[in-house]
Amino acid sequence: MKNIKLTLEYDGSNFFGWQKQKGLRTGEGELEKAILKATGESVKIFSSGRTDKGVHAYSQVVNFLVNSTIPGEKYRHPINDKLPKDIYISKSEEVDIDFHSRFDAKSKTYKYLILNRKLKSPIMRNYAYFVDYELSFENMKKGLEYLVGRYDFSSFVALRSNENKNIRTIYNIEIKKNGEFLEFYFKGNGFLHNMVRIIIGTTIEIGYGRRKPEEMKEILESKDRKKAGHTAPAEGLYLMEVEY
Amino acid sequence: MKNIKLTLEYDGSNFFGWQKQKGLRTGEGELEKAILKATGESVKIFSSGRTDKGVHAYSQVVNFLVNSTIPGEKYRHPINDKLPKDIYISKSEEVDIDFHSRFDAKSKTYKYLILNRKLKSPIMRNYAYFVDYELSFENMKKGLEYLVGRYDFSSFVALRSNENKNIRTIYNIEIKKNGEFLEFYFKGNGFLHNMVRIIIGTTIEIGYGRRKPEEMKEILESKDRKKAGHTAPAEGLYLMEVEY
Repeated sequence: MKNIKLTLEYDGSNFFGWQKQKGLRTGEGELEKAILKATGESVKIFSSGRTDKGVHAYSQVVNFLVNSTIPGEKYRHPINDKLPKDIYISKSEEVDIDFHSRFDAKSKTYKYLILNRKLKSPIMRNYAYFVDYELSFENMKKGLEYLVGRYDFSSFVALRSNENKNIRTIYNIEIKKNGEFLEFYFKGNGFLHNMVRIIIGTTIEIGYGRRKPEEMKEILESKDRKKAGHTAPAEGLYLMEVEY
Repeated sequence: MKNIKLTLEYDGSNFFGWQKQKGLRTGEGELEKAILKATGESVKIFSSGRTDKGVHAYSQVVNFLVNSTIPGEKYRHPINDKLPKDIYISKSEEVDIDFHSRFDAKSKTYKYLILNRKLKSPIMRNYAYFVDYELSFENMKKGLEYLVGRYDFSSFVALRSNENKNIRTIYNIEIKKNGEFLEFYFKGNGFLHNMVRIIIGTTIEIGYGRRKPEEMKEILESKDRKKAGHTAPAEGLYLMEVEY
């Protein structure tokens, strides 16, 4: 048996999320089909995490066990040949038989992209959250600083989530202005369901003055999802890196 | 009668080109349907030019005649409400009854976007031409300089084109490096069918050393399409502006 690790980029616009679901087009489902076509083996894919419908990844990591004698780095081309155009493997390698893409992940980095201008952009409709009111960069930055550290992030988890251990560590949050775009980077040891999107929804409400930056602290401490802002849409979210 | 001018952005990925064609999804076709729904009037759209299947526009200009008394600037919102998500009107205004979006255009600006790196990007697959070999910025720049001016561009027109007057003026060509992207800007009084894409195909061949920059001059003077390079794909091309 060999354990193969793949690093891949995908456009989430046309997936019903990353995780395999019967009868729906998903990233994992497409990848499993391509591996079967390329290697003849029906494998079980272990992913670093699921991403929701519409979320993109510049660098998702998965692994799977195979019986083949093909060297690890040789998986990339044949599987890419069988993959649809919205997924692409950037690296394949053999890893220790015990490696697990989810359990061994030390941290993850997400980007959230906002298009902040007066006019909608059809070209960017699947790739950024369009916000047409002015946002205070300084206030958003201030608000986000309260979230860096080890906290119970229950205020920032999808309401219907089953997660009951909501303690996570955010190592770093960065905001950059890039022309008409705002780029938010979050690095943490793990993220709850919708966590980045609810943080962004709340941050935007701070950005346009509906809430004060200091309210972020109160929201965090309340551990109450209802105190936080709206869930920003999936299309602005990108999984940037999984660190091991 | 009123003459209404619209400025619009669109994502060309899911159009069979801009120009109306029976039974196919096109930009003009979608726009006509939306105008009918919004105003009750069946209008004939005059466009500054057609763009091919897969080509995008940040700023296409069209005009049409209506009988309505609605002020020109009020067309934007109701038509946008009826348009699919891949087209968006950024401006509507009433113009002189004689204004024609094509015949009155003084110049146009196109951008061509190349993603120049080792690995494909599924996220950018519809929005840039992926080139994985190294390109000499300086040689491409040198080659393109031969094309600025008033010339017969017969070497850079689609083979099956019916155009017989191939004299055009290019006012300006710019190249910019932006991270992993190369952006090419062309401003001219008009462009032949596939002209920018054939120029880019030829420029890339200069960029990777298959041709010398000086060959651009010979190709131009030959007035022979077969002497020029390949036609770069549609997905990297953007209509940026139409100037009146």
